[in-house]
Amino acid sequence: MVELAIGIDIGGTSTKVALINASGEFLAKGSFPSHSVGGADVFFPNLLKSIQSLLEEVGIAYQLVGIGIGAPSCNEQEGTIEGAANLPFQKPYPIVQMLEDASSVPVWLTKDGNAALLGERRFGIARNIDNFILLTLGTGLGCAIMMNGRLIKGSSGLAGETGHIRVANNNRKCGCGKRGCLETYVSAVGLKRTVMALLAEETMPSILRAYSFEQLDAHLIYLAAQEGDELARLAFELTGNVLGEKLAELVTVFEPEAIVLAGGMAEAGSLLTRPVQQRMESELLSFHKNKVRILTTALATNDAALLGAASLVWDQLRSVPVS
Amino acid sequence: MVELAIGIDIGGTSTKVALINASGEFLAKGSFPSHSVGGADVFFPNLLKSIQSLLEEVGIAYQLVGIGIGAPSCNEQEGTIEGAANLPFQKPYPIVQMLEDASSVPVWLTKDGNAALLGERRFGIARNIDNFILLTLGTGLGCAIMMNGRLIKGSSGLAGETGHIRVANNNRKCGCGKRGCLETYVSAVGLKRTVMALLAEETMPSILRAYSFEQLDAHLIYLAAQEGDELARLAFELTGNVLGEKLAELVTVFEPEAIVLAGGMAEAGSLLTRPVQQRMESELLSFHKNKVRILTTALATNDAALLGAASLVWDQLRSVPVS
Repeated sequence: MVELAIGIDIGGTSTKVALINASGEFLAKGSFPSHSVGGADVFFPNLLKSIQSLLEEVGIAYQLVGIGIGAPSCNEQEGTIEGAANLPFQKPYPIVQMLEDASSVPVWLTKDGNAALLGERRFGIARNIDNFILLTLGTGLGCAIMMNGRLIKGSSGLAGETGHIRVANNNRKCGCGKRGCLETYVSAVGLKRTVMALLAEETMPSILRAYSFEQLDAHLIYLAAQEGDELARLAFELTGNVLGEKLAELVTVFEPEAIVLAGGMAEAGSLLTRPVQQRMESELLSFHKNKVRILTTALATNDAALLGAASLVWDQLRSVPVS
Repeated sequence: MVELAIGIDIGGTSTKVALINASGEFLAKGSFPSHSVGGADVFFPNLLKSIQSLLEEVGIAYQLVGIGIGAPSCNEQEGTIEGAANLPFQKPYPIVQMLEDASSVPVWLTKDGNAALLGERRFGIARNIDNFILLTLGTGLGCAIMMNGRLIKGSSGLAGETGHIRVANNNRKCGCGKRGCLETYVSAVGLKRTVMALLAEETMPSILRAYSFEQLDAHLIYLAAQEGDELARLAFELTGNVLGEKLAELVTVFEPEAIVLAGGMAEAGSLLTRPVQQRMESELLSFHKNKVRILTTALATNDAALLGAASLVWDQLRSVPVS
């Protein structure tokens, strides 16, 4: 009888659910919209329905051993989701207790960013790495950090807000209300803003001149760069320089073995990683040089978080410290 | 019979040795010059002689339970001191093995900065704090970090080089060869450089105008500030602003419970901590605001490192994880 964990990744748009074995293989995968008519009241019935239909999908005998959840703005100690702006829960939502009552297996909860890190560590590119930093380059910049084989969570779970450290000579307004934050450069939206700045400053021809701010997205910029568009390439280079400079600071403080880049923008590959690595190395102290690997994930963003949610189960059952 | 640990703090000028009980009380304390005629060959005999004379000084029955050492540039795994520019050892110096052979008690070794942190944690101002950053403001800027109750050492013990993260709009040359490092502002020498910059930029009268660069030191600037010298006060304020800005970044990444300031400059008290706290708070994300305490050590710099060296012994014997 195969042992299965349920991994749940609660996101602002949809909630993904998967059945995952101890080797990190997906036996079934589904999703449902996190928001629907009925709000918080229908979220839990929808979740149970989704789990139930996946369990019916599995054609083999199994034993369910536990459930792991990755979610934004969660309180791991209390097992609740609290104050998540993009989720339908008005008050602390005791998801761990609810799922334990409904399933009678143990349930663990962690921040979505931490789940992605655990997924990379157990099943992805960071296997056997005890000291690393994961940056997820999406709409914003997510960050999770593992040192000594344990997640750095801070005094109340609010560590890793690396998207909001300050970049020198950066006056861009950030969604957080401050100006100059790293994610105003290093994110899909940041890349778009950098294209706008370059359109203001440079005169070279570029196919990106044909797009409005609203039409433009990171993928279009990537395609343009791939086709040799000089301005698009420059946008990646500037982004890489900014990231490389701040990574040098993080390496100076943490001395990680590796930095793992994930999220949509990581798919740009060497367009981004080459300037990142180059600038980072040029800024490092001599004894930190040429030691830190810049890795890009091989997992799809959603899969990393689901695998990480399932890792919570396997790590606890196999007694590997995770927190 | 009282249990005693030996704490050893190996510094560029002198090596301090102390007998310390489990409550952190000094039963005897001594020191000898780290350098003397004969170099590495006489260091160890001098160390044993120093220990022996302290043990003779103790007027009560005791049991020696272990030895802890704090030293710069050490290899904790190997138990050696390696490549310390200011010490007389030409090749890796196997101090742990040598002391174990000579004493037949267990011996532990850690970086001097980490020793100071362990001293603050066990016997100083950071008692019972599991997540904090210690900054030692001396000639340079030392840093040690504890998260989840464990030291952040990095992949090869070279984490915490926080003195060499970059400050925006700072072109000051650093001893490390780079320009713009934090310790070119936030250190005793950095404070002096800031006074020079202010003498260049401002016109207000100041008693500091009477001193050459070589004559000036942090203590003189402190005394001037205490007496109301506006330029000296401004130097502390600028130093605090620079430190506060970078601390905000560290808080954003680590979410520590506290920042502990130690070293000679920490004695400046609110002259320094007021601008540090003010600038740090103004830069923090809303959910990080008003949560992180800025503490100043109550221990003398040398005592913190000695107590931390002894803590290595007590922590290991009492099974509190330290690494």
